[in-house]
Amino acid sequence: MPTYTAPTRDTRFIVNEVIDLASYGNLPGFEMATPDVTDAVINEGGRFCAEVLAPINQSGDQEGCTRHPDGSVTTPKGFKEAFDQFRAAGWGTLSAPEEFGGQGMPHVLGMVMEEFISSANQAFGMYPGLTNGAVSALIAKGSQEQKEKYLHKMISNEWTGTMNLTEPHCGTDLGMIRTKAEPQGDGSYAITGTKIFISAGEHDMAENIIHLVLAKTPGAPDSTKGISLFVVPKFLVNDDGSLGERNGVMCGSIEHKMGIHANSTCVLNYDGAKGWLVGEENKGLAAMFIMMNAARLGVGIQGLSQAEAAYQNAVAYALDRRQGRALTGPADPNAQADPIFVHPDVRRMLMDAKAFTEGMRALCLWGALLVDLSHKAPTEEERAEADAMIGLLTPVIKGYGTDKGYDVATNMQQVFGGHGYIEEWGMSQFVRDARIAMIYEGTNGVQAMDLCGRKLAQGGGAAIQAFFKAVGDDIAAAKGDETLGPLAEALEKALGQHQASTMWFMQNAMQNPNHLGAGAHHYMHIMGIVTLGWMWLRMAKVAQAALANGTDDKAFYEAKLATARYYMDRFLPDAGALRRKLESGADSMMALGAEAFATAA
Amino acid sequence: MPTYTAPTRDTRFIVNEVIDLASYGNLPGFEMATPDVTDAVINEGGRFCAEVLAPINQSGDQEGCTRHPDGSVTTPKGFKEAFDQFRAAGWGTLSAPEEFGGQGMPHVLGMVMEEFISSANQAFGMYPGLTNGAVSALIAKGSQEQKEKYLHKMISNEWTGTMNLTEPHCGTDLGMIRTKAEPQGDGSYAITGTKIFISAGEHDMAENIIHLVLAKTPGAPDSTKGISLFVVPKFLVNDDGSLGERNGVMCGSIEHKMGIHANSTCVLNYDGAKGWLVGEENKGLAAMFIMMNAARLGVGIQGLSQAEAAYQNAVAYALDRRQGRALTGPADPNAQADPIFVHPDVRRMLMDAKAFTEGMRALCLWGALLVDLSHKAPTEEERAEADAMIGLLTPVIKGYGTDKGYDVATNMQQVFGGHGYIEEWGMSQFVRDARIAMIYEGTNGVQAMDLCGRKLAQGGGAAIQAFFKAVGDDIAAAKGDETLGPLAEALEKALGQHQASTMWFMQNAMQNPNHLGAGAHHYMHIMGIVTLGWMWLRMAKVAQAALANGTDDKAFYEAKLATARYYMDRFLPDAGALRRKLESGADSMMALGAEAFATAA
Repeated sequence: MPTYTAPTRDTRFIVNEVIDLASYGNLPGFEMATPDVTDAVINEGGRFCAEVLAPINQSGDQEGCTRHPDGSVTTPKGFKEAFDQFRAAGWGTLSAPEEFGGQGMPHVLGMVMEEFISSANQAFGMYPGLTNGAVSALIAKGSQEQKEKYLHKMISNEWTGTMNLTEPHCGTDLGMIRTKAEPQGDGSYAITGTKIFISAGEHDMAENIIHLVLAKTPGAPDSTKGISLFVVPKFLVNDDGSLGERNGVMCGSIEHKMGIHANSTCVLNYDGAKGWLVGEENKGLAAMFIMMNAARLGVGIQGLSQAEAAYQNAVAYALDRRQGRALTGPADPNAQADPIFVHPDVRRMLMDAKAFTEGMRALCLWGALLVDLSHKAPTEEERAEADAMIGLLTPVIKGYGTDKGYDVATNMQQVFGGHGYIEEWGMSQFVRDARIAMIYEGTNGVQAMDLCGRKLAQGGGAAIQAFFKAVGDDIAAAKGDETLGPLAEALEKALGQHQASTMWFMQNAMQNPNHLGAGAHHYMHIMGIVTLGWMWLRMAKVAQAALANGTDDKAFYEAKLATARYYMDRFLPDAGALRRKLESGADSMMALGAEAFATAA
Repeated sequence: MPTYTAPTRDTRFIVNEVIDLASYGNLPGFEMATPDVTDAVINEGGRFCAEVLAPINQSGDQEGCTRHPDGSVTTPKGFKEAFDQFRAAGWGTLSAPEEFGGQGMPHVLGMVMEEFISSANQAFGMYPGLTNGAVSALIAKGSQEQKEKYLHKMISNEWTGTMNLTEPHCGTDLGMIRTKAEPQGDGSYAITGTKIFISAGEHDMAENIIHLVLAKTPGAPDSTKGISLFVVPKFLVNDDGSLGERNGVMCGSIEHKMGIHANSTCVLNYDGAKGWLVGEENKGLAAMFIMMNAARLGVGIQGLSQAEAAYQNAVAYALDRRQGRALTGPADPNAQADPIFVHPDVRRMLMDAKAFTEGMRALCLWGALLVDLSHKAPTEEERAEADAMIGLLTPVIKGYGTDKGYDVATNMQQVFGGHGYIEEWGMSQFVRDARIAMIYEGTNGVQAMDLCGRKLAQGGGAAIQAFFKAVGDDIAAAKGDETLGPLAEALEKALGQHQASTMWFMQNAMQNPNHLGAGAHHYMHIMGIVTLGWMWLRMAKVAQAALANGTDDKAFYEAKLATARYYMDRFLPDAGALRRKLESGADSMMALGAEAFATAA
């Protein structure tokens, strides 16, 4: 069975040293996050995930969820009990607002937990994860009455939440939804329609489920400008907070998926279910994007989390499994063979994983800090800057992070050779679970268009220019240094590819928007590569300083410098190739019509 | 349910026009392969696979194989009947030698069928596929008596074959095998040991199974120089060809795998089973490599086959599914949305798939011709040249072909959005089935080392020099041409990266062999990219000539030219990035010791 240990040392390095959370003590809530509190949260949270959630990950995959004839769904053995422990320990409340029973801690710490939870058990993590998305939308758009009715119990995880967007005929293009909301004259609406792919849509782990549902009111425009958001509880909630009658929303079936078997992915049938408008009529898309943006960061971290879990098991296997001899001569002459760890191609895959996961962790936690700053920074200008930066980075974290996370999980499975293909070893599950993250909350193609078609141009390109300046400043500061200089120079070249790609879009996309679409995916990857390179430069700088100051943990910081060098050697070169592809534009890509794709007999 | 149509038009293009099979009519067996016979085989073979094998692919995945308490295994519903039809139609005999009941046709046609079979039903194809591997070894190394005893019924598929290499503690490093072969004084040996991952190891589709088993005789050297090959029939075969007693080999269990569920992957327990030496004692490795080389080409084509099947379904979905509008304005203004085929990012994935599958098909079929030429070319020199070239290309076809085939299958699943993750649509199966091809018959890391550590250096680098010359000659011939010139110039740059990488290995690998190991995987991909580019240049040349000669099928040849352009735009740039990674060598890759990979708390 696969194992998992929360990478708490590395997390503390990023939280305490790289993003230096303590230096933001002036922000609301951050004053509580002193280093000792932060360390305790990281260590205890990591232990909870490793001890409670990881042991039921494989059994949950094997057993899956079961729908009963009455429409109820049971989760796999141990899930309900684990969720009880999760709720009792208050892990879901960490960075939720104190006003509704949360602990009000920085989102950074919430993000730390999201990684650990998802590494330990991605399918489990989706139950509180979707709840967080629904909570965000209600906080931003709900009425005071709705907030008071739902938020306390959702934040405490007594109830869970869902996001109901997709219908059988539409996912990305939400303007086409058909679910209807008929006003009932009493302030409520009757919701009727079918929603599919509803994660955590029905289960036995909480006493109520609060569905947030996109639907159309009568006469609404036939586009994304005509969709409204509704809150539809599984059980109606009485004014005293007690549960009332069962609402008209039922699980019609659960999907048979490639992975995340322990999460109940439901078809939900709404049959005149009672719902209430959240925010303004026909403004559902904006509310949905609040849920989506939170969810996209959470999904981005799933790319990291599956890569991390797969990596830990691949390291253990590579050190244990013996086949062949090191190319430079026997490493362990007394044994019949050397551990496969000695083989450069195995090391390549492990180093790729190490460089990706540690860089991605830095990016995700810095991204979470930007979320905090976008709400809590002292000035409007700082809040707006942070908001623009995290807006720009969100599709990169989601799209690049999950593409690369899947690649890494696949490579970690490869380390196991034939054993990697056998379900008992657990490596297949990491790959199968990682696969969904490239698809849900907007496919990675949608992320790429969000980045290139929306975020790049916003504010006259202010965010991307700020990004270039920040990376460029760090490069300039490092260039003269003996240790950091070579890293900075390598990154500078990749940044040049990124800037040139941006310029190419500016010069060509107006004339033919397909040029943008044809290069968007490549652009997202270029930006992912540069951004992780930047994180590595920042980590290397901290490591260098620690070594100069005479740290006790020399090996840790030296490994950071070595991994930074590996990253620059082996990740950055792709930026140039991707730029060349991007600059080939849409001509050859769009040259052929549908008939050229038919299989001719 | 997914569908499959054999790409017979494209196959005929390659067989008749690109490799021009008819021009080899002077070779033994090729005289039968006139264009009308070839076309009939392609068309009828394709129809058989689409009509008989494809319909039981998904049901086979869902049902899997069942082992019964007595050790017998039943295959999924319909498999036995399909194999009966396969046998009756003689599809397994196509390119087998006439001496043993085969049809003696070119291996090219056998390879055509391997692609179609594997696209339609990879798990099914492994039953005759493994048989082919065992047949190759017996033809090359078996005694006349063994050949007569086994080959007729194996070639006719009355019996199937297996390859027994792996044991629980060793796969790649076969020097460590422990299975024992004790001579019994009557010319037979008693085989005792445990073999794992034995594809088609036990099943109900044939009346006998002929196992080829690696084992050690008493006192054999404790290395690959001490392994011998044995033939161990499930039922002993009497001198009159009738079946005798059940031999001491039993299926202990079947593996739970990520994919290819319909193939029974067995643990086989040998308990004093009667076996006979094949070839010389302690020379089992050479015999095994005969099986392996045939099998590796067959596995390489699985990368193509899953990509092709996934591609066909993704095209259909992209033309049917409507979401959003073309960036250049509504393509179908009367409908609520455009087919997702209009979106550049969807087209990118489809064009990647098209450029890969068509290029890979050309490479595999040309590779099969080289196999034919290595046996049948008129002069010793020509046979040796063909043998060296296919030896060089085999790890590229297997390693690059299956890495890229998996990528393409993953992208085709991506085209389906959320539906791609649901098992009913069948896209998950293509990905899960494609995954094994990167692992078995030598992981792709082993392929990369076979290429860089063995094949490059063989004959003083004669094969790679011949490859460079052949590609360079085709580039030189095309460079002045208005249509072909730009393709050739793009390919020339990538060839330059390939040559520079080769040179870098020559200059650095002697000093530190880890430099070779650290770049081997990248080198294999560079060579794959260049080789497919070369195939595209050759196809473009044929297409250009057909258009100049006034073909009736203009659209087909124009699509070839457009796809060739796309290939050069979007595949070749990676060669430069891979070269830069390769040239960074082993230093940063091997810098860290085991302790740096431990997860620290």
